[in-house]
Amino acid sequence: MFRNHSQSPLVTAPAETAVLALLLAEGPLSRVELARRTGLSSTAITKAARPLIDDGYLYELPPERTAPGAGRPVNPLAVTPDREFFVGVKISDDRLFGVVCDLRARVRATAERTLDSHEPSSVAALLTDLVDELLDTDTAFRDRTRHLGIAVSGDVDRGGGRVRFSGRLGWRDVPLAETLAGTTGLTVTVENDVKALTIAEHWFGEGVGTGYFALVTIGAGVGSALVVNGELVTGAYGVAGEMGHIPVDPAGPRCRCGAVGCVEAIASTGAILEAVRRGTGAADLGFDRAVEMARDGDPVAREAFARAGRAIGVGIATLVNLVGPERVVVSGEGAGTYDLFGQHIKDAYAAHAFGAAVKCPLSLRPLPWEEWARGAAAVAVQALFPPSTAAAALP
Amino acid sequence: MFRNHSQSPLVTAPAETAVLALLLAEGPLSRVELARRTGLSSTAITKAARPLIDDGYLYELPPERTAPGAGRPVNPLAVTPDREFFVGVKISDDRLFGVVCDLRARVRATAERTLDSHEPSSVAALLTDLVDELLDTDTAFRDRTRHLGIAVSGDVDRGGGRVRFSGRLGWRDVPLAETLAGTTGLTVTVENDVKALTIAEHWFGEGVGTGYFALVTIGAGVGSALVVNGELVTGAYGVAGEMGHIPVDPAGPRCRCGAVGCVEAIASTGAILEAVRRGTGAADLGFDRAVEMARDGDPVAREAFARAGRAIGVGIATLVNLVGPERVVVSGEGAGTYDLFGQHIKDAYAAHAFGAAVKCPLSLRPLPWEEWARGAAAVAVQALFPPSTAAAALP
Repeated sequence: MFRNHSQSPLVTAPAETAVLALLLAEGPLSRVELARRTGLSSTAITKAARPLIDDGYLYELPPERTAPGAGRPVNPLAVTPDREFFVGVKISDDRLFGVVCDLRARVRATAERTLDSHEPSSVAALLTDLVDELLDTDTAFRDRTRHLGIAVSGDVDRGGGRVRFSGRLGWRDVPLAETLAGTTGLTVTVENDVKALTIAEHWFGEGVGTGYFALVTIGAGVGSALVVNGELVTGAYGVAGEMGHIPVDPAGPRCRCGAVGCVEAIASTGAILEAVRRGTGAADLGFDRAVEMARDGDPVAREAFARAGRAIGVGIATLVNLVGPERVVVSGEGAGTYDLFGQHIKDAYAAHAFGAAVKCPLSLRPLPWEEWARGAAAVAVQALFPPSTAAAALP
Repeated sequence: MFRNHSQSPLVTAPAETAVLALLLAEGPLSRVELARRTGLSSTAITKAARPLIDDGYLYELPPERTAPGAGRPVNPLAVTPDREFFVGVKISDDRLFGVVCDLRARVRATAERTLDSHEPSSVAALLTDLVDELLDTDTAFRDRTRHLGIAVSGDVDRGGGRVRFSGRLGWRDVPLAETLAGTTGLTVTVENDVKALTIAEHWFGEGVGTGYFALVTIGAGVGSALVVNGELVTGAYGVAGEMGHIPVDPAGPRCRCGAVGCVEAIASTGAILEAVRRGTGAADLGFDRAVEMARDGDPVAREAFARAGRAIGVGIATLVNLVGPERVVVSGEGAGTYDLFGQHIKDAYAAHAFGAAVKCPLSLRPLPWEEWARGAAAVAVQALFPPSTAAAALP
């Protein structure tokens, strides 16, 4: 993360962090409820809320009385969504998707750009331009936006603000946060795109309130990110959630990572297409045509999708047996062909989930690109918290 | 956990929990160092330490001066190991292994019993007898022991003190903690044996100071337990760390869990023996003979161990790619045949570990049964902390 204007985190005390995080994720809560949920005293809650009310981040709702004679009326506390705005940008292979979100991560404006080049400097210039356009849509955005989040596929060093490696963009060690902090004047956080999406879903989506949560993305790549005990799993060496590189079949094809039988080597759109091309001898077949063939009942194409579905299902069962999420959300552009492999995913998952782990529901959630940009904005919201607590702020 | 004598946790305030946990795991630290590590103020540290010093759990070491003129001398704080003792018992298929440990989880006495029956009531009677013998070895143990930890294989409901299911013992829903609390007068905690061993290794062994840690056990079963962000992974539905039930080969044998190609179906001692029997036609061959044959170069026996090693290595790589531990400790009674499959484990692991995850070292640590009982005692030490923070108490 790269800060500008000597900005420091909005909250640093643990009590303030806990109060703001709970209200961000769950909406209005009474001080009594906040005390119960955080384990803090009512006095500590009141003290923690004070500066946040003074700064306009929180406000008191009108008193609500649950029943006559039920004691003093309570004024629930709520976040003022418009107090601050956040820009999020997802960098995809051929496009930049940008959003402005409010404090509750609701999308307030969107814009996009076509990428002509993957050259870091030209991507940065286009991204700066996109941020400008987004902030220009409303003077409130311009006045009350201090943070930019960027989501990109690959190995990202969030703390250092660098993209260590992105195969899709051909990037190696690109100091994106520093560059963009310079051009936009905002505090910039860069995060891996699947992790960003998972943070958004955990804080503001399907994962709210879960201690254990997983998001799996399928498409040109296969990825996942995990939340354990309320915190994003980042791994001791920066590698975690690599569901695409779980080995599921010793007789499977070689993966671009070099290993044999990875989920991604069987289940990425490229791997499916390759299997259909090989099976049919049509070397220049396109993916859309492979999908059509499968939908028309071509056995080779159907089997390629079925095999992909089984690999994904086995991968999800593995993840569930090891980590035990409360629910798994399946998303990514591959969700568009769920009709072709969804049942195979579910069957393989059910066959391999161990014991009570089978209770964990899979839900398909086709997330439009805008959601990925919202994930980037959610990462920017986390910059309000000190780095070490951002991931752990939620109960 | 079942408490007796209206015992409540020793520490309940977060600051006390943090101070005691750090000193338990890492030994003497100055208040300045404690403040730095916990993020608390020096005043808060002093306040938190006071009641623990008064109760005799902590004491001040003589002042140490690092250099002349380096400011006020500091008195590091240390745990008084003998202030309290803990009994740990591991229930294996044919034996009870018991230890008395001090506060730093050092083993101070050991004893064991042969199990004649798996009947819960007779196991409980023998276990009560074993605890009595252990406490009788020293009047200090009798006077200053309040907690008993029990480690057992299978699905354990730690909070409810019940063994939900243990295939090896043939148990289903056995309220072990309540029974033993009644017969011993101690506060009893029951935990899955692999989790208990992992807690001991994380607090007091190879895992000290790691945020991400994994322990893998091989032998009659294959299991693992994971620590993420300093906390044991328990899973939303009580299932986690089931490395034995990761599917690694769609062409593999059927597992006793019902699924095809689990690590355990290929790599447990039973699966290895079955493969050697099938390959040689010797239906009544024993495991020790299979080991001899492999060591003598018999190709069928060697391949059975090699295949087991590959399955374990793939399982560990999967765990590492998903969760990112800083190190993995491999243990269990199967460590005794590491000469036959160790290299295959390492090769398969190296072939499938993704990117920087390959930096995670595997270390073989043959742990004697006593260590498993020590794991049970470490779980009892955790009963000093409130349940919700016990797992998270360490940094």
